[in-house]
Amino acid sequence: MNFNTSPPRGMRDILPQETEIRDFAIARILAVYRQYGFSHIETPALESIGLLTGGQGGENEKLIYKILKRGEKLDLDRRDIAAEDLVDLGLRFDLTVPLTRYYANNRSNLPRVFKSIQLGSVWRAERPQRGRFRQFTQCDIDMIGVGSELCEAELLEATSEALVAVGFKDFTIRINDRKILSGMAAAAGFDTAAHDGIFVTLDKLDKIGTDGVGAELTAAGHPAAAIAAIMTMLDAMPRDATGLQAAAAALPESIDRDAFQALENVAEAVTAAADGRYTVEYDPTLVRGMGYYTGQIFEIQYGDYPFSIAGGGRYDRMIGRMIGTEVPACGFSIGFERVITILMEEGLADGDAGRRLAVIVADNDPLPAVLAAARALRADGYAATLLPRQRKLGRQIANLADEGFDFFSVFRGDAERPEVEAVRKD
Amino acid sequence: MNFNTSPPRGMRDILPQETEIRDFAIARILAVYRQYGFSHIETPALESIGLLTGGQGGENEKLIYKILKRGEKLDLDRRDIAAEDLVDLGLRFDLTVPLTRYYANNRSNLPRVFKSIQLGSVWRAERPQRGRFRQFTQCDIDMIGVGSELCEAELLEATSEALVAVGFKDFTIRINDRKILSGMAAAAGFDTAAHDGIFVTLDKLDKIGTDGVGAELTAAGHPAAAIAAIMTMLDAMPRDATGLQAAAAALPESIDRDAFQALENVAEAVTAAADGRYTVEYDPTLVRGMGYYTGQIFEIQYGDYPFSIAGGGRYDRMIGRMIGTEVPACGFSIGFERVITILMEEGLADGDAGRRLAVIVADNDPLPAVLAAARALRADGYAATLLPRQRKLGRQIANLADEGFDFFSVFRGDAERPEVEAVRKD
Repeated sequence: MNFNTSPPRGMRDILPQETEIRDFAIARILAVYRQYGFSHIETPALESIGLLTGGQGGENEKLIYKILKRGEKLDLDRRDIAAEDLVDLGLRFDLTVPLTRYYANNRSNLPRVFKSIQLGSVWRAERPQRGRFRQFTQCDIDMIGVGSELCEAELLEATSEALVAVGFKDFTIRINDRKILSGMAAAAGFDTAAHDGIFVTLDKLDKIGTDGVGAELTAAGHPAAAIAAIMTMLDAMPRDATGLQAAAAALPESIDRDAFQALENVAEAVTAAADGRYTVEYDPTLVRGMGYYTGQIFEIQYGDYPFSIAGGGRYDRMIGRMIGTEVPACGFSIGFERVITILMEEGLADGDAGRRLAVIVADNDPLPAVLAAARALRADGYAATLLPRQRKLGRQIANLADEGFDFFSVFRGDAERPEVEAVRKD
Repeated sequence: MNFNTSPPRGMRDILPQETEIRDFAIARILAVYRQYGFSHIETPALESIGLLTGGQGGENEKLIYKILKRGEKLDLDRRDIAAEDLVDLGLRFDLTVPLTRYYANNRSNLPRVFKSIQLGSVWRAERPQRGRFRQFTQCDIDMIGVGSELCEAELLEATSEALVAVGFKDFTIRINDRKILSGMAAAAGFDTAAHDGIFVTLDKLDKIGTDGVGAELTAAGHPAAAIAAIMTMLDAMPRDATGLQAAAAALPESIDRDAFQALENVAEAVTAAADGRYTVEYDPTLVRGMGYYTGQIFEIQYGDYPFSIAGGGRYDRMIGRMIGTEVPACGFSIGFERVITILMEEGLADGDAGRRLAVIVADNDPLPAVLAAARALRADGYAATLLPRQRKLGRQIANLADEGFDFFSVFRGDAERPEVEAVRKD
């Protein structure tokens, strides 16, 4: 048999060095989120194709891996077969759509205010590109049932502390509110129907600058006066979230003043919690891609990395679409793969580093004594593992460093006090 | 919109109580396996359909969830479309087939003796039945590159210690060797080609008894003399693994004596390691379903549960099929879902039990002081979470027990020393 042994296109095998860091990060993040009272839940990787294509996923709905129907349900004999006739399930493209289904399905068994942790793979059949994969891990917390900014404040603090726990510091939380963006766009004179498109363009301000955004909005046929008006408003806003209400006084009265008050409250509370370890800043041009956001939105930026390492916001109408009653909800998602990329680039030490030990065993060594020797070494804190002795022991020992070992012990029959030597690392 | 909010057929949502136990078990198992020098790795959930249907998966190959091709690769216009033309990927049905691909793909970056941990979901479109699901978690360790029973002994000890670490005791490891089974079948006079089918029937001895097995073998057309001969051999074997070589003396000489010696070595070593906490026993009728096993096979049985909680064996020829050179390999898989079922039935306490605390906050409480109060409580060891105060505070407090809380603190402005009360549980 002759296989291509690569993983499927756009997917990857994860080597032991990386998995150690991933496990370390997962353990730390889960521990912090649990301290904040969030509960870990799981949903299946597969959902019905109807749920996944229900309109909440935006562009992601075009990237679904779809599952062929099985057994009698698969009818290939009829004419004019369409792809949608052939599939009944799909792999989830995010954890938010499954969460709303989970909440709808299980709410009678869940607390009135439900605070969830989700950690799992999602799949998107995107065009493969450097550093982006078609299967990747997301780590979300969500709070269902709280409409006040208590929710945003706790989500921001908990996610920040989770990032601190895995080694991040001096990062910046950027916050905004969709209601303010909408208010500005309306006051500037844009059609309500055009707001989503305008926001997508505004999102590019830090990449293409004021001129670029102006040109793109003009090219899309928006009136010059509206473009100038919204640019003037955005320019006038401070980055300092504590001065927000004062700055907002100069804006047209139609723009929601409560939203500024709430942003200022959240910024003040989270800044106090941060105690200088991370900062909160207002970003009037922060948009976030998904159409379902209804209130505050936020992202976390670290160093000079050209991507955010976490993002989220309030989505008060999404659960209502599923159960018929509106339930407020808000979530914050850690870009787990990006976090791992940074941890690896910045050389975070792995958990077992410094204590990996090989017990080298000859074929005729008595197995019970061999196992006992390894047990004694584990009791001394080594991660001890058995290796069969090779014909050239010297060469075997010389290779141990390359194989990731820090210590070795050649079994000599003494189960109680095995002799340990450090591996020479050149 | 009106959705069916159930998970897909045969799959399930996992509620917080169970996820806590799962996370606890995963952390303990991973910690033990790391102590034994195994490295955690990950492969994608999807593999090429060619790999998955390559003949190593036995019956599982019929249960694959297959992925519809995407974009131009999906051709629905031609005549006589067959299902296999429509798919290019599938969800993995076990972790062993992906491991062999992983090893083949990455072996230049892996140690000469590679000891892996895998923990992940697998999918099988089985007929739904009570207690069995179409997505479930497997937890495997494998050792690639060791042909001696050093390997089996370490796998058995490590898996047993992992089970001890999650709370199991007094379980039984049953061991056998495929080479002994084949030797007995050949000596009894069965055709070599029929061995696999005979083993499947023998595997049912504890369910349908000697008569049942005899009847099934007769119905399958096997000679009565051969059936009688193998039954006599099996009957004569002891359950005590330490008496194996002596008992084997009475068997036909064509049956591999080294295999008995190796089983006895492994049993002796693991029994010593167990120190009375678990036992090892020889089971002459143990078969294990998969066709790829080539040597020792093993299962772990706990209490009266009618299923094993772990199983595995040696598969020395599987990697050779992939890379052209034979590499010895052996693995042991914990039936993670069964372990969780038992832990839940036996009422294992969850990690956060006894320290969940609700901080009840009114709308106009100052957020910075509220976050500080919760932080102070977390520093005292509570898993503290904010809850908005409801109009009827008494009723809210009365409901806290049902919502899983152990303590509460009504925020009263004092961030440093919040007053904590126990939740009344009736």
